[in-house]
Amino acid sequence: MSGVALVTGGAGFLGSHVAERLVREGRRVIVLDDLSGGYRRNLPSNCEFVRGSVADRVLIERVFAENRIAHVYHLAAYAAEGLSHFVRRFNYENNLLASINLINAAVNHGVKCFVFTSSAAVYGSGADGAASPTPTPVDPYGVAKLAVEQDLRAAEEMFGLRHVVFRPHNVYGERQNLSDPFRNVIGIFLKQTLLGEPCTIFGDGKQTRNFTHVDDVAPAIARCVEAPEAWGKAFDIGSDQATSLNEIAEMVQNAVGCRVGVTRLPERREAAHVKTNHEEARRVFALGPGVELAEGLRRVAAWAADLELGPPRLDLTIEIERELPPSWRNALTKRAPHDS
Amino acid sequence: MSGVALVTGGAGFLGSHVAERLVREGRRVIVLDDLSGGYRRNLPSNCEFVRGSVADRVLIERVFAENRIAHVYHLAAYAAEGLSHFVRRFNYENNLLASINLINAAVNHGVKCFVFTSSAAVYGSGADGAASPTPTPVDPYGVAKLAVEQDLRAAEEMFGLRHVVFRPHNVYGERQNLSDPFRNVIGIFLKQTLLGEPCTIFGDGKQTRNFTHVDDVAPAIARCVEAPEAWGKAFDIGSDQATSLNEIAEMVQNAVGCRVGVTRLPERREAAHVKTNHEEARRVFALGPGVELAEGLRRVAAWAADLELGPPRLDLTIEIERELPPSWRNALTKRAPHDS
Ligand SMILES: NC(=O)c1ccc[n+]([C@@H]2O[C@H](COP(=O)([O-])OP(=O)(O)OC[C@H]3O[C@@H](n4cnc5c(N)ncnc54)[C@H](O)[C@@H]3O)[C@@H](O)[C@H]2O)c1
Ligand SMILES: NC(=O)c1ccc[n+]([C@@H]2O[C@H](COP(=O)([O-])OP(=O)(O)OC[C@H]3O[C@@H](n4cnc5c(N)ncnc54)[C@H](O)[C@@H]3O)[C@@H](O)[C@H]2O)c1
Repeated sequence: MSGVALVTGGAGFLGSHVAERLVREGRRVIVLDDLSGGYRRNLPSNCEFVRGSVADRVLIERVFAENRIAHVYHLAAYAAEGLSHFVRRFNYENNLLASINLINAAVNHGVKCFVFTSSAAVYGSGADGAASPTPTPVDPYGVAKLAVEQDLRAAEEMFGLRHVVFRPHNVYGERQNLSDPFRNVIGIFLKQTLLGEPCTIFGDGKQTRNFTHVDDVAPAIARCVEAPEAWGKAFDIGSDQATSLNEIAEMVQNAVGCRVGVTRLPERREAAHVKTNHEEARRVFALGPGVELAEGLRRVAAWAADLELGPPRLDLTIEIERELPPSWRNALTKRAPHDS
Repeated sequence: MSGVALVTGGAGFLGSHVAERLVREGRRVIVLDDLSGGYRRNLPSNCEFVRGSVADRVLIERVFAENRIAHVYHLAAYAAEGLSHFVRRFNYENNLLASINLINAAVNHGVKCFVFTSSAAVYGSGADGAASPTPTPVDPYGVAKLAVEQDLRAAEEMFGLRHVVFRPHNVYGERQNLSDPFRNVIGIFLKQTLLGEPCTIFGDGKQTRNFTHVDDVAPAIARCVEAPEAWGKAFDIGSDQATSLNEIAEMVQNAVGCRVGVTRLPERREAAHVKTNHEEARRVFALGPGVELAEGLRRVAAWAADLELGPPRLDLTIEIERELPPSWRNALTKRAPHDS
């Protein structure tokens, strides 16, 4: 595989794993990341790093003009399901408009394949395990992800821009962001457990998620540009095993080796269960059984043990205060000023 | 009905008809329009006019802070199906992000009902007359409209923001924009006929559209805020009669009373037929049989006869040149600088 790979969000969790794999395969890799949610320490060695935002149209144009980008892996996003109701505008600017800058540049500069990480959030509460559930997102994050998927389809039809979409399920693993209090429940529980605080659960904790180790997702994302069977398709990807939040709180505490208990918060609007079909991804990418949950949690706990856990690091401005869960409001007033 | 009605795009075609009806009912009406596609001459007397863009967050915030807006009629958009491929970023900024400014303000200021004109473009080529076709837009214009619909549903679920969505079909009538060469085929044919130029048809002209007079659409839009049965719903609205472009070119020339013939251009990617179901709108709004096409065309031709027909008036910057139909490229180089 020749040509430059551009990995947006490559200083983040998933993006750094994808970038690492590409570097290992001998690819020339440029990471573009604004470090709003990522860290320099996550960057694989031997990649070029451009600090900046995908939302910066002029920067994107320059990166494409100066480099022969063959493949775009677009993972940069602010992935806050649920919170996106309160940061609507920011959500669409960062997750949709920024993606459009990339799609324009990819068309204009003849990119060979555009890989996009969407989300199971496109299904909203409609992901009920039916063979092909119809995407009906229920929060602005899911709306933006679905719009980018559709825009990519339109760009493929009109301009022949090849693309592959992944909708990963609750991915966890080494290098995941532990500073953001609004997403990734495993990250939140892990941080709480390491700090000796009880794990906070919204509602009765019986809602389930299919937690998936990053090693079961990153390889398929990295490889898809070479898999003609994948082109033009959208893949639900992740574990088939549903685990309740009560169980996962227990398991995280076991992995850390520390009992902190749980605190229950009023339930918030969120999907009770998110079940999609991973058969197609498994077939096309010849995926194995995957990392066992307890084992994956041990790994991420071991990695996290050495981290300095600072206060939340966020530059968010809340656009709508109504209905914001009180615990989120507190987190936003306690946050640290942003730096990288 | 008390409280202020804000009509965005009220200096435009559909918006001016909606605003006029609201004024006639004794409502206090504020029109917000940036005159990018509308005209002062379209404004009903007795409305307040704010010249500015919905994309201007600060302006929107001020308009809502200074007025008790009860109802938002959001009709402002750049409605260029097809062309949106080439002005992707502009499309999402003007049609999606701008709408989000309004939705944020509507939630924060307790608006009673938010009325949005979406488009049959949300169906893409999927509008095949099935009872409830699944929206699968095929161009960025349709993608943006669908995203706003979904965002409104999310805002209703989360914040109780009541809303009504209309997806009108090829509306024509008095005050429609005749200066934009990229949309509304009746407007294009009308202008060509009045200028003595042949009507330009992409492809064989057998593609059909359901042309609908504005008087069959505007009343339902104006009234829906008082119709509880309409709340929370999306209505396909328009004529059931499919007319081919060949036929409509003929009919427009008859209405003007001038034979100019047709010129055939290479076909472009567009839906062959767009057929949706208008039963629900007809029932909820007790709509009659509608203005007969030949009669409607006579009216719009009579109105247009007195207009000064200038060159296209457009501020568009093309973002992707590839695949742009040559006739569109020509139109863009011939355009006049924008003024109102
Ligand atoms: N982790 C999951 O469970 C999961 C599930 C579904 C989808 N996804 C998607 O996968 C992608 C990666 O997610 P992640 O979990 O690694 O999150 P992450 O926050 O660790 O990584 C995102 C990275 O993008 C960067 N970024 C954000 N906005 C940017 C911008 N405008 N310009 C440049 N860089 C920007 C951040 O600094 C961060 O490094 C996202 O698109 C996310 O929506 C993740
Ligand atoms: N006419 C149709 O056949 C049709 C069909 C489906 C949907 N629609 C929708 O109905 C609405 C009205 O369409 P129309 O045919 O009357 O078009 P129009 O161009 O005559 O009216 C749109 C108006 O919005 C204004 N505008 C555009 N962007 C703006 C912005 N950012 N801020 C403030 N004002 C802005 C323009 O100046 C114009 O006056 C649009 O939302 C369109 O997408 C129209």
